Amino acid sequence: MKEVSRIYSLPLPTIRRYPIYLRAIKAKIAGGDLNVSSAVLAEELGLDPVLARKDLAMAGVPGRPRHGYPAKELCDAINRALGWDNATDAAIVGVGSLGRALLGYSGFEEQNLSVSVAFDANPALNGETIHGVMVHPMTELPRLAKRLKIKLAILTVPNFAAQSCADNLVDAGIKGILNFSSIQLAVPKGVIVQNVDLAQSLAVLSHAIARG
Amino acid sequence: MKEVSRIYSLPLPTIRRYPIYLRAIKAKIAGGDLNVSSAVLAEELGLDPVLARKDLAMAGVPGRPRHGYPAKELCDAINRALGWDNATDAAIVGVGSLGRALLGYSGFEEQNLSVSVAFDANPALNGETIHGVMVHPMTELPRLAKRLKIKLAILTVPNFAAQSCADNLVDAGIKGILNFSSIQLAVPKGVIVQNVDLAQSLAVLSHAIARG
Repeated sequence: MKEVSRIYSLPLPTIRRYPIYLRAIKAKIAGGDLNVSSAVLAEELGLDPVLARKDLAMAGVPGRPRHGYPAKELCDAINRALGWDNATDAAIVGVGSLGRALLGYSGFEEQNLSVSVAFDANPALNGETIHGVMVHPMTELPRLAKRLKIKLAILTVPNFAAQSCADNLVDAGIKGILNFSSIQLAVPKGVIVQNVDLAQSLAVLSHAIARG
Repeated sequence: MKEVSRIYSLPLPTIRRYPIYLRAIKAKIAGGDLNVSSAVLAEELGLDPVLARKDLAMAGVPGRPRHGYPAKELCDAINRALGWDNATDAAIVGVGSLGRALLGYSGFEEQNLSVSVAFDANPALNGETIHGVMVHPMTELPRLAKRLKIKLAILTVPNFAAQSCADNLVDAGIKGILNFSSIQLAVPKGVIVQNVDLAQSLAVLSHAIARG
C-alpha cells in the first residue's frame, strides 16, 4: 500500500519526463551498460542534474554511489510507474484525416498501447478496416468499450462534436482521453484529459516567424 | 513601431489561447453576430473572464462598453497577431507513419499553413507523391527550403535522427520547428521549437489509468 500511494503522488512533470529517460536508459542497455547514472542521463538529455536525480529517485529503485542505478531494474520501475508494464487497449474516436493517420501510426506500441477499435458517426465508414482496425458506429461505443475493456480513447473528432463524444466516452467507462480537438473538455473527477492541440503549437511558431 | 513591439511581446499563454478564441469568434460571425464580448466568450470556453478580457485587449482592437468587440475586426487582429493573415509554407521532414499521416491531415489549412514539400532520407521514397505532396531527398532541403521560402518545418523523424535533421533545418533558414520527436532539440536563438510529444501525454494518461 505504501508503494502504491508513493507512486500515485508522482509529480506531473516527472511523469512527463519519464518516457524521455526511458528511451535513454533503453539505449544504454542496448549498448551493453548494466548501470546508469542520473548525472550522465541528465547531461545527455540536457536536463538539470539535480532534477534528474530527484526524478529517478522517485521510481523507487535504490541507486549505488559511483555505480548509479541498475539499468534494467530502473527501466522496469519506470514502466510500472507509467502503467506501461501492462498493455493498454485504446480506441480512436473520429476517423477523419487525423484519426485515419493515427491508425497508421506505429509509435503507440512503444507505450504498450494497442489501438484495437475505432468509432465514427459516419455510417459510410462502418465496417471499414483501416490499418487492421475496424471502424464501428458511435452507438456501439458503450458495448464495445466494456467488452474490450478499453480505458483510453484518442479523440480526433471535429470541435463541434468533441464534448458530446467525451460525454459518451465517460459514460462508457473511459478513464483517459487524449484530446486532439481544441475544446476544453468538461469531464468528471477521475477522468484524465491530455490535450494535444496542434493549432496552439502552430500559433506560437507562426507568431514568432511572422515577427522574426 | 509601437504596434509591432506590443504584439511582439504577447505572453506565450495568450498566444496559445488565441486559436481557441478565434474559432469561437468565427462561429459567432457565422451565426450573424456583429459584436462579441469577452465575458460571453469566456463563459463558452470555460475560461476565467478576467483572463479573457486581458487576452482580447492585447489584440489591440478597442472594445466598446456593453457592445464588446467588433467581431470581424477582432478576428482579423488575432489572425495578424498569430501571423495567420499570410499563408505560411511548411515542410514535413520524415515521411514515416506519422509524417505520412500528417500529409493527409487537412487541419493545417485553418492556420493558413500549407504543407508544400516533404523530405525523407530513404531513397525509396524520393519522387513519391503523398496526398499531392512530393517527397524529396534530405540533400535537397537547403536548396528547396530557400526556393520555396519555407520558414516552418514539421519534424517527424525518429529520435536518433532528430537533432541532425534540426541542424540541417536551421542551416536551411527554417525559423520554426514543430517537433514530434522526444528529443529536446538544441537550436540557436531566433529559431523556435514547439514540442508535440505524444509519449509524454500518454504517460500521464496511462499512469493515471494504471493507478485509478
